[in-house]
Amino acid sequence: MSDNPVISALGRKLRLGVIGGGPGSFIGAMHRAAARLDDRYELVAGVLSSNPDRSKTFGADIGISADRAYGSAGEMLSSEAGREGGIDVCAIMTPNDSHFEYCSLALDAGFDVICDKPMTNTLDEAIALHKKVVKSDRIFCLTHNYTGYPMVRQARAMVADGQLGDIRMIQVEYVQGGNAADDAVQANEDGSLSWRLDPERGGPSLVLGDIGTHAHNLACFISGLELTQIAAQVGTVVPDRKVHDVAGALLRFDNGAVGNLWATQAAAGVENCLRIRISGSLGTIEWWQETPAQMAFRPLDGPAQMRTNNGPGTLPAAARACRIVSGHPEGFHEGFANIYSDAAEAVSARIAGTKADPLALDFPNSADGARGVAFAHAAVTSSKDNSAWTDCRIEL
Amino acid sequence: MSDNPVISALGRKLRLGVIGGGPGSFIGAMHRAAARLDDRYELVAGVLSSNPDRSKTFGADIGISADRAYGSAGEMLSSEAGREGGIDVCAIMTPNDSHFEYCSLALDAGFDVICDKPMTNTLDEAIALHKKVVKSDRIFCLTHNYTGYPMVRQARAMVADGQLGDIRMIQVEYVQGGNAADDAVQANEDGSLSWRLDPERGGPSLVLGDIGTHAHNLACFISGLELTQIAAQVGTVVPDRKVHDVAGALLRFDNGAVGNLWATQAAAGVENCLRIRISGSLGTIEWWQETPAQMAFRPLDGPAQMRTNNGPGTLPAAARACRIVSGHPEGFHEGFANIYSDAAEAVSARIAGTKADPLALDFPNSADGARGVAFAHAAVTSSKDNSAWTDCRIEL
Amino acid sequence: MSDNPVISALGRKLRLGVIGGGPGSFIGAMHRAAARLDDRYELVAGVLSSNPDRSKTFGADIGISADRAYGSAGEMLSSEAGREGGIDVCAIMTPNDSHFEYCSLALDAGFDVICDKPMTNTLDEAIALHKKVVKSDRIFCLTHNYTGYPMVRQARAMVADGQLGDIRMIQVEYVQGGNAADDAVQANEDGSLSWRLDPERGGPSLVLGDIGTHAHNLACFISGLELTQIAAQVGTVVPDRKVHDVAGALLRFDNGAVGNLWATQAAAGVENCLRIRISGSLGTIEWWQETPAQMAFRPLDGPAQMRTNNGPGTLPAAARACRIVSGHPEGFHEGFANIYSDAAEAVSARIAGTKADPLALDFPNSADGARGVAFAHAAVTSSKDNSAWTDCRIEL
Amino acid sequence: MSDNPVISALGRKLRLGVIGGGPGSFIGAMHRAAARLDDRYELVAGVLSSNPDRSKTFGADIGISADRAYGSAGEMLSSEAGREGGIDVCAIMTPNDSHFEYCSLALDAGFDVICDKPMTNTLDEAIALHKKVVKSDRIFCLTHNYTGYPMVRQARAMVADGQLGDIRMIQVEYVQGGNAADDAVQANEDGSLSWRLDPERGGPSLVLGDIGTHAHNLACFISGLELTQIAAQVGTVVPDRKVHDVAGALLRFDNGAVGNLWATQAAAGVENCLRIRISGSLGTIEWWQETPAQMAFRPLDGPAQMRTNNGPGTLPAAARACRIVSGHPEGFHEGFANIYSDAAEAVSARIAGTKADPLALDFPNSADGARGVAFAHAAVTSSKDNSAWTDCRIEL
Repeated sequence: MSDNPVISALGRKLRLGVIGGGPGSFIGAMHRAAARLDDRYELVAGVLSSNPDRSKTFGADIGISADRAYGSAGEMLSSEAGREGGIDVCAIMTPNDSHFEYCSLALDAGFDVICDKPMTNTLDEAIALHKKVVKSDRIFCLTHNYTGYPMVRQARAMVADGQLGDIRMIQVEYVQGGNAADDAVQANEDGSLSWRLDPERGGPSLVLGDIGTHAHNLACFISGLELTQIAAQVGTVVPDRKVHDVAGALLRFDNGAVGNLWATQAAAGVENCLRIRISGSLGTIEWWQETPAQMAFRPLDGPAQMRTNNGPGTLPAAARACRIVSGHPEGFHEGFANIYSDAAEAVSARIAGTKADPLALDFPNSADGARGVAFAHAAVTSSKDNSAWTDCRIEL
Repeated sequence: MSDNPVISALGRKLRLGVIGGGPGSFIGAMHRAAARLDDRYELVAGVLSSNPDRSKTFGADIGISADRAYGSAGEMLSSEAGREGGIDVCAIMTPNDSHFEYCSLALDAGFDVICDKPMTNTLDEAIALHKKVVKSDRIFCLTHNYTGYPMVRQARAMVADGQLGDIRMIQVEYVQGGNAADDAVQANEDGSLSWRLDPERGGPSLVLGDIGTHAHNLACFISGLELTQIAAQVGTVVPDRKVHDVAGALLRFDNGAVGNLWATQAAAGVENCLRIRISGSLGTIEWWQETPAQMAFRPLDGPAQMRTNNGPGTLPAAARACRIVSGHPEGFHEGFANIYSDAAEAVSARIAGTKADPLALDFPNSADGARGVAFAHAAVTSSKDNSAWTDCRIEL
Repeated sequence: MSDNPVISALGRKLRLGVIGGGPGSFIGAMHRAAARLDDRYELVAGVLSSNPDRSKTFGADIGISADRAYGSAGEMLSSEAGREGGIDVCAIMTPNDSHFEYCSLALDAGFDVICDKPMTNTLDEAIALHKKVVKSDRIFCLTHNYTGYPMVRQARAMVADGQLGDIRMIQVEYVQGGNAADDAVQANEDGSLSWRLDPERGGPSLVLGDIGTHAHNLACFISGLELTQIAAQVGTVVPDRKVHDVAGALLRFDNGAVGNLWATQAAAGVENCLRIRISGSLGTIEWWQETPAQMAFRPLDGPAQMRTNNGPGTLPAAARACRIVSGHPEGFHEGFANIYSDAAEAVSARIAGTKADPLALDFPNSADGARGVAFAHAAVTSSKDNSAWTDCRIEL
Repeated sequence: MSDNPVISALGRKLRLGVIGGGPGSFIGAMHRAAARLDDRYELVAGVLSSNPDRSKTFGADIGISADRAYGSAGEMLSSEAGREGGIDVCAIMTPNDSHFEYCSLALDAGFDVICDKPMTNTLDEAIALHKKVVKSDRIFCLTHNYTGYPMVRQARAMVADGQLGDIRMIQVEYVQGGNAADDAVQANEDGSLSWRLDPERGGPSLVLGDIGTHAHNLACFISGLELTQIAAQVGTVVPDRKVHDVAGALLRFDNGAVGNLWATQAAAGVENCLRIRISGSLGTIEWWQETPAQMAFRPLDGPAQMRTNNGPGTLPAAARACRIVSGHPEGFHEGFANIYSDAAEAVSARIAGTKADPLALDFPNSADGARGVAFAHAAVTSSKDNSAWTDCRIEL
């Protein structure tokens, strides 16, 4: 049997269609590389521009034949649904305000869906989309890519295994400097990112949608806890800026644990500093995205340990996320690819009517997405209400 | 002229008397070593126990002659005040609830004072003590020892010099694991620290008095800002514990900067992790107590720099806090000693009627101490008031 | 024009055939992933086993059609050479002793070649192969993958740009622990790596062929210098082992610089610690493979800098090796892929008769490969000769 | 009983006289601070200049009374020997070429001796001095201060305890940048260090005497092994320099372990990078002087550990070298002080006729000093002999 579970299940790769990620898109190239790394997808169709000719031109550059480079999502979805050998999976990487529409269309057309985060801009859309996913019986994968890093999965597995004991405290920070300069948010050269400055399109809070939601997701993914209440201060530190560039919050989790979240894109000179520390009754873990293949584990009694990708003590959930022996760092692409590859395993099992490895099903889904949107909304609400404690929980 | 400014000013060392720091006291040994390192003090008198015989016995061990090892503060202060060659400076390292009384007595007796932090337990006492200090025309030095590290002084000097631009954000955390075990707070072997468990003696919040106040002081010392408002969640994560072991807070500073503070003594396996990140419009600095001789400086434009004790770019306020060339780490004792040595320079200049180097006067004083007590009180108040924003400012 | 230079030049991806890398091969999977990441190759043919049926079975798993999964290199090369749409490039990842034969065959058949390191086992073969490459006018790429890391390219570019001044000293170490246990070298589960224990097949020195040659290559790649003489101690520290597991050497370079090399696979508990420090008259750089996206630059005058992938100061040779903005670590796969992708750019330019970006031509080639073999031979010779200084230079 | 073993044994501090360390001397101030930190010495006499008046003037600055500030070593030694309450211990911190003479005089006068490294310039002197020490029945302590760091002592104790198994490999490097600039060696402002440029006074090799000897000592101290043979390349990389600024060496130890040493003072921008890695059959330790309170321990099987001063797993030999709980970094002064304080314990036990704690006797002594001189001589000899393997062992 093949090492490639998609080939094993289907005898072929999954056929992937993309919506978004046209010329110049950083995230589009990332999604496509992630799909490619483990050879579980074949990119065969795409909507790469609302201009059909541009879509075809760019499609040719990335290996999509002219007849499958579409000018609209509706066109792609209906054509591919009706086509012999049409796509299996639809991946969506468009501006945030269109996620709901395209995900809904794709699910309605019967496709499994991979969607960029945040899942939607509004909480109503998030809940509605989650319900649609549940009804659809299709796979829905949200690319909270940081959950794909082996050490993040190791952390989650250690918590689940009781190695940290009862979880008591969570500190998470996501600090970047990309928007520290006065004109940083406006500085996207060709204007293609200007939608992020418009709350209607980019969502209620730039910093929360861009990175705060990753921090929230990471805390919940690793700890297995749900955030129940938040007291937040969300705002803007760079003068004359219209969008949020900083958010601080006090946190309360469903098991009584307390925590702290800090997210900013205005910390001059900082690159991409996502860090988390989780303390339980038996130990503390610390993980930093900028050196992702290492994680400190500090037991209550005994010397601190430096855990590594595929190093001693690696649990199965982490081991399956590693492609190489320890000491050979796997980075951002590999983590992103792990999300895609697990989704592929889930989709191919669904199609084949087989059971996927349960460990493959741990990628962020529509419930996680809805909770992420609820988090951002609660943070903004709390901040407007003078940082009052605000409920984050939603019924799903 | 001597390199030793005390010898230069007075032709002798300062005569030091101590209250507290008897047998087994960690902080007492630290104070005495700090006084000794730069040879500016001679320890000549002390109250090392309320039992006069024990005071004499232990005094002999640390080089205090029997006639100057006293059984009470009052006795030492009056005897030394009346004595030819009596002490110049009184250092106080007793349980927190006695700081106010002993500092007051020492000032009343005309001595310069060095006092361990927190300055007092109650805000009324703090303000009263500060007023007494101002009236006394004596030097008052509070041993917020972390301000003695060269890189902390470098950070403050860089901010003052405008190298960070306008300060916009401050994150500070002080995380320890010493109280993570269920019975940790009770575990002091001989019971001599049991006073810390009693709010009357240890103050309103163990975690805030022990370490939160260091974090607050560090943020203000480096940034030169005053904390104006705080929204805090202070509590206890270890079951069945009577004292606080965790505090999280959102912060607002007087220039509009925002921030975040986290302090806990219940993070299993963490040693003494005091960290601060301050971002301004031109750059960010990051300093970690556990590797104190390094500090990252991340300019808005340009590669991140690793600044070091006495390394390139060291400003005068930091250079004077270094005893060795770069690469030879100076640690906790040296930082603590810097506080003592600067205080010595200030005291000897006062006595001699000369001017101390202005850079020598940067040690924490009674105003800083009062603000630290105000911070802790505001945090507890906010927490009781459902984390409402609470004013920290006091009129001084 | 496409961002993909292969598509731009040829209007299609390169067609790749592989020799080696069958079931269970770590390095085979790595080569294929590296070829895939940037979408410049299509894997269409392979010799995956000397058993034709096994070759077809495994070929199917990795997407090679049955008629192009061959049982021998000769069969693949002649079939593909004669076929419409046959392969462009042949990649070789077989045991070391067969590299010479397969590379020669592939070149003779007119293919461009990508070959795993070390290039050959014997120096005669290495020189002969290099001459054949020169005559062939084909691209020859040796996968010294560590040269693909952006920071390694940054280092090379900074040296070339004069930012380090005259190079004076090089320290390089490659330390692993995989062979530290007594039975480690024998422990490969299915015996498929047992060829490495046979000097006829694995080469004259396991540690030098496996990792010492990477260290040598890295030193020369970054510094732009040639190693002229070596005094080495090569041997075995684990009792009863038949192959080398440690090598130390003093180095002399062609510009008068001196250096030091240490390679071992017997350092218990160490993972994959390849480190280099190069000092010139104007500064020192330090790079560590285990945190590959960072590099320290220590200027003669001025604070140490931490350079990062795509961070400030990134030179073009490094920037083109990065796929993401700074702070998003690119790891082992991405570095390996950079070698493949540059080779693709070179091959497609050759085929199209265009000029490749000169920066794309910096991948290790047959001259580097021959020098690597000469290094290993000189080290073994020196060691046998009581560590006498031994010449490494070869005429190429 | 006092915590201060000197007070316990003698009821008083040791009386210390110093030779050398006059105005502007970095190392003199360091020795005096080291003597002071733990309150085991009282500095009472000194030869601080060959000019008696300058000696008295500077003596006054550092608390030595005029009648005990001498103009020559002979004068101090004879006066103090004949004096009631004369010095117990003589500490020598003069240029290297005078160590032999002053140590000999001090021993002859019956004093215990603390001497700066290297012990002597010539091997004959080293052996002669060692023999004199043995005959004298006096304590002789050589300030190889890096052996005073707690983690270095922990490393030695772990090796002695068998936690690393059989020692197989040692890598040690001591890299500085202080002499990287063209005129660095000449740049001492007041010319007081110009003796270091004169081989007659500074010894046969500047880099070996200054720092190479520390590296050698550290390797032997931790491993408990003796260096038997060395093949070295010692030379000068900065143009037009008359003294050595780089040394590389291959090493062979008495148990068959092999190793590697690198020392340079010409690595631009590097501060004080003394690092060691020792691998045994059961694990590897790594220690770096610039973060001295941490040490990595990598067991053969199991996750890497980060050991810390007074952290979990601290052995008694390290615990006694720590003054504070873990996480409070102790630095260069504290390590230097540990050497002085252990010597004090040994001296006071000798005087009192009691037994010192055996762990107090682990400071470097005259045998270590002689081996250090033999190492430097063998390295120079080997280098002149085209890096031939050269014996380091001496009969002691």
